[in-house]
Amino acid sequence: MKASIKDVAREANVSMSTVSRVMNKNYPVKEETKIRVEKAVEKLNFSPNILARSLICQNTKTIGILVPSIDNFFFPTVIKAIEYELKINGYSIYLCDTGNNATEEIKYVKSLMGRQVDGIIVIDPKTENMKNGFYEAASKDVPLVSINGYNDNINCNFVLNDEASGARQAMLYLLELGHKNIIFVRGKESYSYDIKENVYNEFMEENKLNYHKNIINIGEGNSYETVDGTMNIMRKELENLQTPIAIFACNDLMALGVLNACKIMNFNVPKDVSIIGFDNICISNMVEPKITTVDQNMYLLGESASKMLLQLIENKNHEVCRLKLKTQLIIRNSCSNI
Amino acid sequence: MKASIKDVAREANVSMSTVSRVMNKNYPVKEETKIRVEKAVEKLNFSPNILARSLICQNTKTIGILVPSIDNFFFPTVIKAIEYELKINGYSIYLCDTGNNATEEIKYVKSLMGRQVDGIIVIDPKTENMKNGFYEAASKDVPLVSINGYNDNINCNFVLNDEASGARQAMLYLLELGHKNIIFVRGKESYSYDIKENVYNEFMEENKLNYHKNIINIGEGNSYETVDGTMNIMRKELENLQTPIAIFACNDLMALGVLNACKIMNFNVPKDVSIIGFDNICISNMVEPKITTVDQNMYLLGESASKMLLQLIENKNHEVCRLKLKTQLIIRNSCSNI
Repeated sequence: MKASIKDVAREANVSMSTVSRVMNKNYPVKEETKIRVEKAVEKLNFSPNILARSLICQNTKTIGILVPSIDNFFFPTVIKAIEYELKINGYSIYLCDTGNNATEEIKYVKSLMGRQVDGIIVIDPKTENMKNGFYEAASKDVPLVSINGYNDNINCNFVLNDEASGARQAMLYLLELGHKNIIFVRGKESYSYDIKENVYNEFMEENKLNYHKNIINIGEGNSYETVDGTMNIMRKELENLQTPIAIFACNDLMALGVLNACKIMNFNVPKDVSIIGFDNICISNMVEPKITTVDQNMYLLGESASKMLLQLIENKNHEVCRLKLKTQLIIRNSCSNI
Repeated sequence: MKASIKDVAREANVSMSTVSRVMNKNYPVKEETKIRVEKAVEKLNFSPNILARSLICQNTKTIGILVPSIDNFFFPTVIKAIEYELKINGYSIYLCDTGNNATEEIKYVKSLMGRQVDGIIVIDPKTENMKNGFYEAASKDVPLVSINGYNDNINCNFVLNDEASGARQAMLYLLELGHKNIIFVRGKESYSYDIKENVYNEFMEENKLNYHKNIINIGEGNSYETVDGTMNIMRKELENLQTPIAIFACNDLMALGVLNACKIMNFNVPKDVSIIGFDNICISNMVEPKITTVDQNMYLLGESASKMLLQLIENKNHEVCRLKLKTQLIIRNSCSNI
């Protein structure tokens, strides 16, 4: 049986309110008494009932985290940062895996509100729930921060990556290496791929490379199957291409698929084919050759969102915040000059 | 402002107890009234206060999950399974990242008890907290299931992988391919590596291959740096080895490190060097050649632990359970016969 505050009081031979004072550190208690209570707490393995305290204090010291899939290369690092940052501030986190499903997202947010969370962080929310006003409405009821996601004219708190600037860095790097024949590899519908494709189109136009424009859509772009899916499509594409070429892939999973296709087709990376990815997931640094990519600040994203949320809680949710993080080109071994 | 049950009652023009009946579905209510209440709930975005209900019902419908690191190839899949299985049974999960630290583990368990969780699942607990009796004591206070971890004569509930049998399958496979010169690659202290090393030693002895025994310890075995760490050590080792050889690595990160070393040294995998890993993390299926490995049932581990925990909660924690899951050899392209 779990020990109660009564058991601790009996063990330490003090009153229950003395135990409470020691636990909450809110009233002075004689050092000798304090030690006796602490020993009793230790001996009986007592933990105070945070639940009962929550009802009285009107805060639960809990935060809900929504994520499209915990089983992914990108999100675990974001969550690790959130968990750490919130823990050191006395909060526990509820983890909710929405399976990238808009209806599940709504259900989870409502369930979290029912659990009286002090705030919510939603990672990569579904575009439709941003556009239909669900998150704007929820943000009025509870402090809520969105990490990435659709944000044009949306009145929510955001921590965002500057993906457009990252895409431009990648393109500029390839151009500086002398590449003109630059192929763009993306997945099916996603706000993030659209941003990058816009940059690609603008960049090719600005540099008068329109005749080289080549956009390849590999379908499902963010699952474990993406690597093989990209490889299969790129094998066929590579048959008809004149090397040297450069390939800018919308994420590292696609970049890895391109790399594998090159291996099978006996193209040398980076001599024949230069490859640049996006995200800087750990795997891009674990293969041979290591993949040049654009760092998405996964840890910093989580940390910044947590800090923003804590500030919103502190300020009673009386402001709307937006923070855009810079991306950074990570040069490794998958690109070379012509 | 969040809507209260009072607001809903006013909106639907019914009493608060009628709203409560509709929400809890515990008393019959006229269909027409039910629809009116549901509309009001929808309109006001009302969520019932689960917290208050928890204090009355003596259960919180929350489960705590402890994990050495969420930012890892192995654990996210386990957690995904747990989250899903518990969600469909009406539970929310608290996620706790212990940073693989024994003191943090204890702190988290105490904090979870303070939050009155209905149960705890601990993934890969620290051996010292098993040996010093901490988990045995905690298991008496709250339903608790451990996934893997030290378990010799420990009176806790366990879901385990049969790692010994998996290691034997791997060794047998290499032997059947004609390999005698089999090198064992492990990391520094870990109960899991010890189990596999025992099997390796026994197997080499049984098959009179003692003169080929070669155990290489690559140090830190379970971090993102493991791949490069293993590669650096194996590059030097490969210089002095007569191919063809086979390498049995304790996990897929080490196996990948060996694969990269072979690439750099221009050894062909699998013709010169056969490599077999362990775990079947997704990355083993994403590189070229794809790595033959032993599947650890990551999803099934999480699912089984959740089901066991739910049963313990149902049965008031009146039993001690132990479940050992079979491992399975996954044959891909990194091993060949001599």
